[in-house]
Amino acid sequence: MTFPVIRNFEKIIENGANKLDAEARKVALLTLESALSAVNPRNLVSEKVRFEGNVLEVGGFRLNLDDYSRILVVGGGKASGRMAEALEEKIGKRIEAGILNILKGTSNEYKTGIIELNEASHPIPDEGGLRGVEKIKKLLSTVDKKTLVVCLISGGGSAILPSPQRGISLEEKQQTTSLLLKSGATIDEINVIRKHISAIKGGRLAAMAYPATLLCLLLSDVVGDPLPTIASGPTVPDPSTFQDSIEVLKRYDIWQEVPETVRRYLTGGVEGINPESPKPGDPCFSKVHNIILGNNRVALEAAEKKAVELGLNHLIISSYIEGEARHIGTVFAAIAKEINTADRPLARSGIVLAGGETTVTVSGSGKGGRNQEIALSASLRLDNLRGVALASIGTDGLDGSSDAAGAIIDGSTLKRALEAGIDPRRYLGENDSYHFFKALNDTILTGPTGTNVNDIIVLVNLKGGKKRIIE
Amino acid sequence: MTFPVIRNFEKIIENGANKLDAEARKVALLTLESALSAVNPRNLVSEKVRFEGNVLEVGGFRLNLDDYSRILVVGGGKASGRMAEALEEKIGKRIEAGILNILKGTSNEYKTGIIELNEASHPIPDEGGLRGVEKIKKLLSTVDKKTLVVCLISGGGSAILPSPQRGISLEEKQQTTSLLLKSGATIDEINVIRKHISAIKGGRLAAMAYPATLLCLLLSDVVGDPLPTIASGPTVPDPSTFQDSIEVLKRYDIWQEVPETVRRYLTGGVEGINPESPKPGDPCFSKVHNIILGNNRVALEAAEKKAVELGLNHLIISSYIEGEARHIGTVFAAIAKEINTADRPLARSGIVLAGGETTVTVSGSGKGGRNQEIALSASLRLDNLRGVALASIGTDGLDGSSDAAGAIIDGSTLKRALEAGIDPRRYLGENDSYHFFKALNDTILTGPTGTNVNDIIVLVNLKGGKKRIIE
Repeated sequence: MTFPVIRNFEKIIENGANKLDAEARKVALLTLESALSAVNPRNLVSEKVRFEGNVLEVGGFRLNLDDYSRILVVGGGKASGRMAEALEEKIGKRIEAGILNILKGTSNEYKTGIIELNEASHPIPDEGGLRGVEKIKKLLSTVDKKTLVVCLISGGGSAILPSPQRGISLEEKQQTTSLLLKSGATIDEINVIRKHISAIKGGRLAAMAYPATLLCLLLSDVVGDPLPTIASGPTVPDPSTFQDSIEVLKRYDIWQEVPETVRRYLTGGVEGINPESPKPGDPCFSKVHNIILGNNRVALEAAEKKAVELGLNHLIISSYIEGEARHIGTVFAAIAKEINTADRPLARSGIVLAGGETTVTVSGSGKGGRNQEIALSASLRLDNLRGVALASIGTDGLDGSSDAAGAIIDGSTLKRALEAGIDPRRYLGENDSYHFFKALNDTILTGPTGTNVNDIIVLVNLKGGKKRIIE
Repeated sequence: MTFPVIRNFEKIIENGANKLDAEARKVALLTLESALSAVNPRNLVSEKVRFEGNVLEVGGFRLNLDDYSRILVVGGGKASGRMAEALEEKIGKRIEAGILNILKGTSNEYKTGIIELNEASHPIPDEGGLRGVEKIKKLLSTVDKKTLVVCLISGGGSAILPSPQRGISLEEKQQTTSLLLKSGATIDEINVIRKHISAIKGGRLAAMAYPATLLCLLLSDVVGDPLPTIASGPTVPDPSTFQDSIEVLKRYDIWQEVPETVRRYLTGGVEGINPESPKPGDPCFSKVHNIILGNNRVALEAAEKKAVELGLNHLIISSYIEGEARHIGTVFAAIAKEINTADRPLARSGIVLAGGETTVTVSGSGKGGRNQEIALSASLRLDNLRGVALASIGTDGLDGSSDAAGAIIDGSTLKRALEAGIDPRRYLGENDSYHFFKALNDTILTGPTGTNVNDIIVLVNLKGGKKRIIE
């Protein structure tokens, strides 16, 4: 990730219909740049992991590396390659060996010396993923209580670290997941099953690493950072049982539909034949330290810091934003209007920030993503406000099915679009936000950023007048 | 409206699962009471209209009643009866005559001496409405430049003040509106036609009142208070034309479907046979003063004032909230979680306020309303937070198709519901929020409040500890 991350930075600013709008656009992009920089996995490891003398310190947790005879690195996820690079820079000489599963086709992007990077596909797991996990298991089988295992986990870990239990094929595992996704079961319910047909999830990696000390550094791509959900919690106790997993499948009437091998394995679990996932209080967790290295909040706080630097008021609304993208867009338009008429919830000039992960219920046949749809929806309701810009991006740089990270709008977007013969209502109806913004040259283009801490929305509200925020 | 307005105030507080939740519920209800009291039309007129000596002052506008030889009162809407009562209390002796259209079946609720209250139906206009408007027209035909006309307009005025143009029947007018509503036309587009087939809307009442001075006091039930939209703007210039109205009908392919009389009237307008609505700059507006007496913001600010009294932090997010109710509910749950984990966007103990008018896309067969659906949706995502309560109400006291004003939830609502065998997801799927909250005794019951300034959402976040907000 080089800076500016946003490739069409200058072009977006030029699209402002007037000086104030151009300035609002620039402020939005600058805050997004700061946010993206802060959650770059390399920067996160470099800044948050401290190594002085023999002491490694991260997130308030300290350990003396001289207490360990061996240091091993395992894990996986979309951002784990970058994390590994930075970790090697810090304590490379101390690491004895390591094996990480990373995204297929990206191993050339990372330079590690000791830690082996193994490619695995996402979102559909593959044999490469299986091989990597087998290597991880083998490495962990060698630990003793003087071993330190550093585990690097990031988004996508569920698919990138596949390990179906004995007798269940990758395909059968996936079939089960597909059935669950269509059944209406909640993500927590789905995870109950996932954790009971996996040999690594639901705390089982922690069990494997015992009696070593396990330091798990996580980059969270789940709203609210629930440890048991990120990559299905390989290092986190699992309170759910085999019985629970059968009940979920029966509750959603798919018990008879899941593959026979899955049914047999789960039944065997209830009968005590197959091993239960480790529960809270299990001794294997006594030496586990899970530390969230980066998340949506880190990105928002970096953006907020940028606002301070720029002399702007600032307000983080929430890092837990979920719900249908277009309606989230209307909420931010509503906030813009309130600021414009009443200098509330914050006085101008200022920025409002939010993060999370919205959803798009697709009914049209267009191309787009949740962030572009937020922006498109908001553009319909900005009522010609001046000095207002709203940008929404996925921090991974890929919004939905498009190659854009997101999009930016201002109070003139609706007018500009209609004058160009592009009716935003039609594009919204077709879930075609990508082509709408492409036509206006208002997509935000970063390419894959190598990180993922969900989405960021920034709403800028400047006040007309002589004072310039940015020259 | 007597206080407490919320009839089941004590019962709702008792439903708190613990002391802190009960306190949060109480804070929510107290702020709602303050909000409702502030927008009670009687209170609005009493407090905002000042009459001292001979000078009447309202919203920064002053007039000496001795300058006028006659004072007449006209208008209509759901809250106009109460406004008339309070106006008579202020300047009753000065009023020569008045005629107002009020909601059918409510004339016994108001006591006026001089101003005649005429019943009219809503939302389907009726003959009673027509008769009232004819009386208004007759009264206004008697004015001269020494006359002061006070016009009292409130929500529902469009239907309650019906006056189709010559040759168009009430039924035909309605048929046209129904076609437009189904066509996908925006509210502004629909209003273009409304204003061209009505003899009172689109500034035509102002034209009738000329050369009198016209003081129009409005209670806004439209998000953002656009004067041309409230009751279709009888006292506001209309920039749209007959040609525009024909274009809208053609744009949505319903020109051939609207009644022949409507087509003929609009065509006659283009041909200059029928009179155009008065345009911006028309002399008839030179003596018109439109003053918004009450709106959503007044309610929110009263609630905020109550928070100050209670020693709580406070933040108004927006008075422009629109969008699908269930997604607005998720936004407020997201804000609650952020406050709970990071004391942002405001520190506890505090309340977050918002207002506007959401929508419910009905797919189920249940009973409910947008406010109850906001609360139901949020209840799924409050993650057992303690000291958190969220309430949402329609200020008119009638949420959707139910007899409740809205509903209240806290962090224990989900647990309580599941224990009682009531699955909120199922009720949300059926748009059956009313029965969900009825089963939990958590509907907010006020009965019709006699006002309408849209909806209010209040989110309370208290902090555990010794200090009590309310003893």
